[in-house]
Parts: sequence; C-alpha cells; structure tokens
Amino acid sequence: MRLGFVGLGKMGGNMAERLLARGHALVVLDPSDAARDRASALGAEVASDRADLARHLAGSGTPIVWLMIPASIVDAEIDAFLPLLPSGSILIDGGNSDFRLTRSRATRCAERGIRLVDVGTSGGILGREQGYALMVGGDAEAVALLSPVLDALAPKDGWHHFGEAGNGHFVKMVHNAIEYGMMESYAEGYRLLRDGPARGIDLAAAGLVWQRGSIVESLLNRLAAEAIAENPSLEGIDGFVSESGEARWAIEAAKDAGIELPAIESSLEVRIRSQRGETSYATKLLAAMRNKFGGHALNAK
Amino acid sequence: MRLGFVGLGKMGGNMAERLLARGHALVVLDPSDAARDRASALGAEVASDRADLARHLAGSGTPIVWLMIPASIVDAEIDAFLPLLPSGSILIDGGNSDFRLTRSRATRCAERGIRLVDVGTSGGILGREQGYALMVGGDAEAVALLSPVLDALAPKDGWHHFGEAGNGHFVKMVHNAIEYGMMESYAEGYRLLRDGPARGIDLAAAGLVWQRGSIVESLLNRLAAEAIAENPSLEGIDGFVSESGEARWAIEAAKDAGIELPAIESSLEVRIRSQRGETSYATKLLAAMRNKFGGHALNAK
Repeated sequence: MRLGFVGLGKMGGNMAERLLARGHALVVLDPSDAARDRASALGAEVASDRADLARHLAGSGTPIVWLMIPASIVDAEIDAFLPLLPSGSILIDGGNSDFRLTRSRATRCAERGIRLVDVGTSGGILGREQGYALMVGGDAEAVALLSPVLDALAPKDGWHHFGEAGNGHFVKMVHNAIEYGMMESYAEGYRLLRDGPARGIDLAAAGLVWQRGSIVESLLNRLAAEAIAENPSLEGIDGFVSESGEARWAIEAAKDAGIELPAIESSLEVRIRSQRGETSYATKLLAAMRNKFGGHALNAK
Repeated sequence: MRLGFVGLGKMGGNMAERLLARGHALVVLDPSDAARDRASALGAEVASDRADLARHLAGSGTPIVWLMIPASIVDAEIDAFLPLLPSGSILIDGGNSDFRLTRSRATRCAERGIRLVDVGTSGGILGREQGYALMVGGDAEAVALLSPVLDALAPKDGWHHFGEAGNGHFVKMVHNAIEYGMMESYAEGYRLLRDGPARGIDLAAAGLVWQRGSIVESLLNRLAAEAIAENPSLEGIDGFVSESGEARWAIEAAKDAGIELPAIESSLEVRIRSQRGETSYATKLLAAMRNKFGGHALNAK
C-alpha cells in the first residue's frame, strides 16, 4: 500500500524501514535530514511539509497517514493534518497516547470525517527484525483496510483489533504497566543476588540459566542477562529511570474502576524515587533494560 | 550413572522419567505404589526402604541419593540417610529449601563425611520435555561428579554451579521471588483489561499478541494466555493462592541486607490476603498460572 509516515525516530525509522522492505510505498516527513535521507535511500518519497505529504497521497485511494511521534505533540499534529486530509482519510496514532485522549481525539477526527486508528506498538528496537506486536483500536472498516500494513509490521498473528478507538492504546497501556512490574521484579531479584547474603553469585550465569527452561524465562530476562554480562557492576549508569506515563495512567484507570495494582504501583514508585536520587543496582538495571529494548539513553542527566 | 532417587511426586516423578530415558540407572523410593510402578515400568529398580536403597548403591562408585521431597521433611530424611551412607557419599536436595537451612544441613552432613549438594530446580511440569533449569550449590568435586546427571536433567547450558552449599537454593529462592512479582504483574494487568474502563477486550487475544514480538513476552504470559483462552472468566477457580516460602525468605534476606523488594513484597501480600478471602480475577489467574506450570491444585480448599 501507499501511506504517509510522520516521525522517523527510534521507533518510526525502523518501522518505515520494515514497511519499505516489505514493498509498501511511503511518503515520509521528519525534521531530521539524516532520518529523511535514510528513508529516501531505502525508496521512500520525502515530503517537504504536511501539505506536500497530503498532496502526495491524493488520488490514490484512501489517504492514510501514520503518526509515530511523541505523545506530547499528537494533538498539535492531528490539528495540523485535519484541514489537509479529505473526508474518509485514516489517521493512525502508533505512539503511547493516553487511551482517554485517544477516545476524544477520535471523536474530534470523526467530526471532520477522518477515522483515527490507534495502534499500540511494542517491540522496541528489536521490532525491525522480529516484527512488532500491534494492539489496534478504531473503526473496523479502517482497520480492515490497514491490514496489509499491519501484517507487514507484525510477525505472524502479531496484531489484533480490540474494538473501538482507544482500546488499542488501552491494551498497550496495560502492556506497559505489566512491563514496569516485570522489570522491577527482575531488578529486585538481581540486586538481591548481588547485594544479598550470598557472596560471589555470578549474576549473568543466573540470568542465562533462567533462560533455559525456568519459569521466569522471558525476553526481558534475556536482555537483563545480556546487560549484566556486558557490564556486571553496571558501571557508568546513573540509575535515574524515566517513566513515560503508561503505568501512571493504568493506576488512575484502575482506581476509577476500584481495582488495586500493588506490584505495578510499587514499580512506578521506585522509578519516581529514582528521579529524586534513590538509585541502586536495581534502578541501574532498569535503565540498562530500557536501553536494551528501547534504545533509551542510559543516563537521564 | 547410577543413583538413588527419593520422591516421585509431580517434580520427582518426571525427573526420574527424564533420567531413565537418558540412560541413567535409578534406585527409587516413594510411598506411592503407583509412582513406584510407573518408575519400575520405565526401568528403575525399586527399593523397599532407605536401608535397601543404600544397599543397592553400595559397591558401585560414590553413592548418590537425590531427594525430591517437600521442604518440610528434608531434615528428617537427611537424618534418616546419614547413618546409612558411607563417608564420601553425595546427598542432593533438589527441592525448594531455605538456603539458610541448607547451609547448616551441609555442615551437619560434612561432619559425617557426606557432601550435601543443593539443586534449585525450575521448570515445573514442563520440565520433563524441555528440561529443567538447575541452580547448583555445594562442593565443586561433588558437583563435577554429578555433571552427567545435571546434563541429562537440564537443557543445553541449563545448569550452573553457583558456589558453596546453599547458593543453589539461594539463586532458586530469588528466581521464585521474581516469579511472584512477574505473575502478580500479569495478573494485575489482565484484571485491568477485564474489569477496567474499556469494555469487551479479548484478554486471550491480548495474551497471544503479547507473545508475538512484544516486550512482555514470556513463558508465564504464554501460560496465562492459555489459561484464559480455555476458561475466559476463570469460572470454578476460588482464587486462594498458596505461597510456599521463597518470596518470604527473599524478603527476610533482603531486609537483613538493607535492601527493599517492593514489587515482590506487594506480590506476596496479595497471596496472603487471598488466603483471608480477598480474591479477584487477578488471584484466580495466579492460581491458574500455578496450575499450568506446576500442576498445583486450582482450589486450595
């Protein structure tokens, strides 16, 4: 298919590359010369601005624009695109937006005849090769139309339509909240292996054995073990860990529904306290894991 | 090799089967007729009591006895075997013993010339086919002697010697504490998918997508998604969740070392509260996961 793709950062750049490699035609927009040049070298058309991108998409079926941009600028980007796209167009928010905002944005788009499809996207920097797990919400007809693109981005059986607009971001928010709890569980465990009552435990060896038939086997553990094998004392990592909202939103949504999320809430609190300087081997390992799967900077400061 | 094997329960029975299938010779002891008959049909010799088992092992190299029995009876079993085994013998505790007890038991055994090797064993009822992740502590020479048996039980690279007696159980304790935190994280997340603000989310579909390239991909998530696919409302599961000590010991060990384990501690508290009647879809899912990986009874009462 042919689609516009806005945002060629760590996630978007790799996703565009995967789409191009699988025969889709992209018209890309990004402020970075280097990112545009890379996409162009792989066969993408480069738009000079949003209006130019919209012109490129005109006259070849339903215009589709995939936004892969920070959550903080989604509203502005949608507002800028709405006047440029004809009724019937599809706008996709592939980032980590708050599902409550996605619901209201979808209503706002629908008033202009535009269908907003939310695609929670997991896989981090590993996704380009192995494919992205995609959690999709929005109009069923629009999602059906997008299926060749979703098939190209995801591994086999790697995407699902979870219902109305916002549900994709809701499932992705829950995914990320689980991720916080899992990461914290590993971080606490490895810290206890290192700083607890047993001396000289080989943490990297433990991580490897845990990947070989144990009940705590996971992608996150593989990445934790790799990070520790490369840098056993996690030297040079400051241990300040960012939180990007999803666990916080999950806790708010849970409170509204009268549900407790004690492990996830503890995990968020550890990150918030890390930003106030309460760092440890555990929070260093959180940062190292985030770097491994998301390419996030190791040191916040 | 030839070894005694005491305890043919859910774990031990499968481990004995795996060892027999890989050409090791076993002399087994178990109170259950059915368990003994099954092992016998697979080629094991059956001992009538501990003394008989010790006699069977005499005269064929270092006597080795693998105990795969509940933690509560390990002391009694060791005491019963010590007078029956010659100096130089190896006793293995493959269960989930408190590493602090293992340390003192190893000293007690050493006074009689017996080497106690602790082998933390993960893999649950899946281990028979895929192999067990083994976390080993104890005398290095004894561990080297056991390596053909460990190789047979574990998948490739699936066991490691972590140092002195107790260290195997220590690493396994940390493993299980991490397992508590991971399970709780998933349970909280799936509960929020079901009982939160978005209606009609297909939980099993979310679980499957999360196994296809997402950051929360894991064995535990695969089992959770299977349990939900088979019984979406987890009907008939009472939601009382047992705790078998490892997370509690980990928290004690952490406190001694001045370390906090907030996510793991929250996870333990949820299980303890479930036993007082505070059950939910989340605690039902914990029980369903334990059933999937460990064959633990779905309903405690």
